[in-house]
Amino acid sequence: MFENYTYLDNSSITRLDERVFEEMKPYFFEKYAIPTSETGYSMGIEAREALERSRETIANVLGAPPAEFIFTSGFTESSNWALKGVAQAKSGKGKHVIVSKIEDFSVLNSAKALEKQGFKVTYLDVDGDGLVDPDHLKDSITDETILVSIQHANQEIGTVQDIKSIGEICQEKKVLFHTDATHTFTRLPLDVQEVPVDLISVSPHTIHGPSGIGGLYIRKGTAIRKWMDGGFQESNRRGGLENVPGAVGFAKAVELVTPAENRELQKLRDHLMERLLKEVPRTILNGHREKRLPQNVNITFELVEGESITLHLDMRGFAVSTGSACFSRTLEASHVILGIGGGHERAHGSVRFTFSRYNTLEDADNVADAMVEVVENLRRISALSQ
Amino acid sequence: MFENYTYLDNSSITRLDERVFEEMKPYFFEKYAIPTSETGYSMGIEAREALERSRETIANVLGAPPAEFIFTSGFTESSNWALKGVAQAKSGKGKHVIVSKIEDFSVLNSAKALEKQGFKVTYLDVDGDGLVDPDHLKDSITDETILVSIQHANQEIGTVQDIKSIGEICQEKKVLFHTDATHTFTRLPLDVQEVPVDLISVSPHTIHGPSGIGGLYIRKGTAIRKWMDGGFQESNRRGGLENVPGAVGFAKAVELVTPAENRELQKLRDHLMERLLKEVPRTILNGHREKRLPQNVNITFELVEGESITLHLDMRGFAVSTGSACFSRTLEASHVILGIGGGHERAHGSVRFTFSRYNTLEDADNVADAMVEVVENLRRISALSQ
Repeated sequence: MFENYTYLDNSSITRLDERVFEEMKPYFFEKYAIPTSETGYSMGIEAREALERSRETIANVLGAPPAEFIFTSGFTESSNWALKGVAQAKSGKGKHVIVSKIEDFSVLNSAKALEKQGFKVTYLDVDGDGLVDPDHLKDSITDETILVSIQHANQEIGTVQDIKSIGEICQEKKVLFHTDATHTFTRLPLDVQEVPVDLISVSPHTIHGPSGIGGLYIRKGTAIRKWMDGGFQESNRRGGLENVPGAVGFAKAVELVTPAENRELQKLRDHLMERLLKEVPRTILNGHREKRLPQNVNITFELVEGESITLHLDMRGFAVSTGSACFSRTLEASHVILGIGGGHERAHGSVRFTFSRYNTLEDADNVADAMVEVVENLRRISALSQ
Repeated sequence: MFENYTYLDNSSITRLDERVFEEMKPYFFEKYAIPTSETGYSMGIEAREALERSRETIANVLGAPPAEFIFTSGFTESSNWALKGVAQAKSGKGKHVIVSKIEDFSVLNSAKALEKQGFKVTYLDVDGDGLVDPDHLKDSITDETILVSIQHANQEIGTVQDIKSIGEICQEKKVLFHTDATHTFTRLPLDVQEVPVDLISVSPHTIHGPSGIGGLYIRKGTAIRKWMDGGFQESNRRGGLENVPGAVGFAKAVELVTPAENRELQKLRDHLMERLLKEVPRTILNGHREKRLPQNVNITFELVEGESITLHLDMRGFAVSTGSACFSRTLEASHVILGIGGGHERAHGSVRFTFSRYNTLEDADNVADAMVEVVENLRRISALSQ
C-alpha cells in the first residue's frame, strides 16, 4: 500500500536494507544460539564469532578497539547508560553534569532524571544555528563537573557541533565527554584516535539497519557503572541476552554506507534546500547552512502549521516530520527550535525532510513541487479565514 | 551446517518461527515508519495500529488491559526496571527488597545494584526442589519492605513457584510483587485477574519470537519510576524508539503457542527425564518433579563434568546447557544448583535439556541414547585416570 509513497522521515527510522536482512537471516533460522564460551557447543561458538566480528566492524568505523564497543538495545539505552552510569561511578568526585539545551530526549531526560537524584545540571545555550560556544562550555565547567554530554549532530535541525574542540576542553579540564552520534554515525567521520571523546552513542536505525540494537563506545579506563544488570554478557559490562541477528545486521548496515552515498545525500539535501528557500516565500532555514548533517533539511514555513503540511503532504504520498507539538506527541513545540531562539510560531511551522539511500533527486524535486503548492494553498485558506 | 543438529537449549533462546518472521517482514520493508499520533502521516499511523494490536494480543494472555503492558528491549530490561523503578519510587516508604536466592541474574544483580545504593536485600532460601516457603517469605516482610521479586519458574531447574500464595501474602502485607515470567509465559497460565501480581517480566525469545524485545506488565496504580528516559513513547512510561517489527513478532509468537504444544513439550520432558533417571546410574533430578516447566529437564550426572558432556554431545550433534562454571561464563558454578543445596559437584555435573516446538520424541530418544553412552564413556575415562 506504500509502493508509491516517498518516505522522507529517515532520521526517525529507515527502511531495512535487503542486504542487511539477508545477513541477519541465518541467525534467525540456522545459527540462532546465544553466544557461548569456547568450551560451549558449536552453534553457540558460531554465534559468538558472529557477534565479535560484528563488534569489530562497527568499532573500526570509530577507530576503536573492539573491546571498547558494547552492544545495547539502542541509542536511548546507550545515552541513559552513559549519563547515569558515569553519574553513579563519579558522584564521589562531584555532582555536576553539563548538556546542551537541544539534546535528544534520551540525553535531556536522563539529565533531568539525574537532577531528581540530587545532581546539578547545566543546560548550555546554543546560538541561532544551534551551535554550542566552546568558550561558554569552558566557563561552565567547575570542580564539581563530572560529565559533559553534547551531541555530534542535532536530530531535528542537523547542526553539527565542533566535538573536537569540545572534547579537547573536557580533556584539559579532566571531565568525561559523551556524545550522541546517532545521526552522524557513518555519515560523518568520528575517530576516537583524533577526537578525545570518552563515550559515544550509536545506532543502526538511521542507516537501514535493524531496530532493537545500538551501541555505546566506552574508552578504556572510563569510570562507568553497569546500568543493565544481568548476566556476564558483553565482557560483564552489560547484562541481557545478546541480540546476535541484530548485531550482525548492525555491522552489515555499517558496511553498506559509502562516502559516495553520503555525497549523494548531501546533493539531495542542497537541492531541496535551495529550491524551497528560493521558491517558497517567507521561509527560514533551521540549523547551520554548512555545518549540517548531509541528509537533513529543516525549514520553517511562516504562517502555516507543520501538522497541516504533514497532513497535506501525506495525502500526496510524502512522509515528513514537524517540530510542532501535536504531531510529535510532546506537550510543547520542539525544544530544539525553541532552543535556537525560534519561538513557538517558528517551531509550529517547521518541517524536517531527511533523505536516505532510497531517495532520489526526483523525490527531492517532487516534494519541492508539492511543498510550493501545499504552502501556497494553506496560506490562501489561512488568509481567507482571517 | 546445522541441518542435522538437535538443539535442546531452548530456554536460552529459540529458533525464530517462519510465521513470526513473515508477520514481521512488512514492518521492515513496507510499513517501517515509527508510530505517529493520529495527526501523523499514514505510514506512521499504520505502525501505531500494529503496535497497539500487538500490545493487545500480548496483554490478553495475561488477562490484562493493554494499557498495563509496556514494551521493553527484553526481560533483562523489564526486571531492571521493575526492581530499580520501584526502588526509586518507593524509597520514601522503606528500603528493603526481598528476592529468592535462585532468581535469574537480571533480578539478582539488579538487587545487588540496589544494595550498593543503600537498599537492604533479603535473599530468600529455597528448599531442595527450589521452592520458596510462603511462611518464610511472610516472616521476612518488615515495615521497610517495598518489593518482593520471586520468579514464576526457574531458568535452570524449571521449578514453578506458587506465585498465587506469594502474591496474596504481598497483597495482605501491602508490598509490591514482581515476578519474572520469562520461562512460563504462554507455557503456563498466569492471569493478573486471579494472581495478585503487580509487575511481570516477559519475553518472546523462548517461544520462537525475536530478540531485542520484551515487556513489562505494570498493574494500574503501581508506583514505579521511568527507567529508560527518552521521548514520550509507550504512554510516556518508557523512552526509546518503538521496535514495531519486534512487537509484531512478539505478538505472533504468543499467538502460535497452543495448549496442545505445551502438552507435547511435557510429554517430551517426561519421556527424557524417565529414560535418563532409569538408564543412567547415579543421576539426580534437579528441580521439582511435578511443579516444573513443561519444557525443562535438568539432571546431575555424578562423577562427570557438565562441560565434558556438553562437548561430547555437541560432537554428536546435540546442543545442551550446563550449570558448570566455565561453560556458563560466570566465575562460579550455577547459583541455582548451589541454592537448592546441591554443592559444587552437583552443579558441575548438571545438564539442562530444554525442548521447543521443533523437537520431537525422536530427538528425546536420540539424546537419551547419546547420554547413556557419553556418560558411561566419561566415567570409564575418569575411573581409568584415577
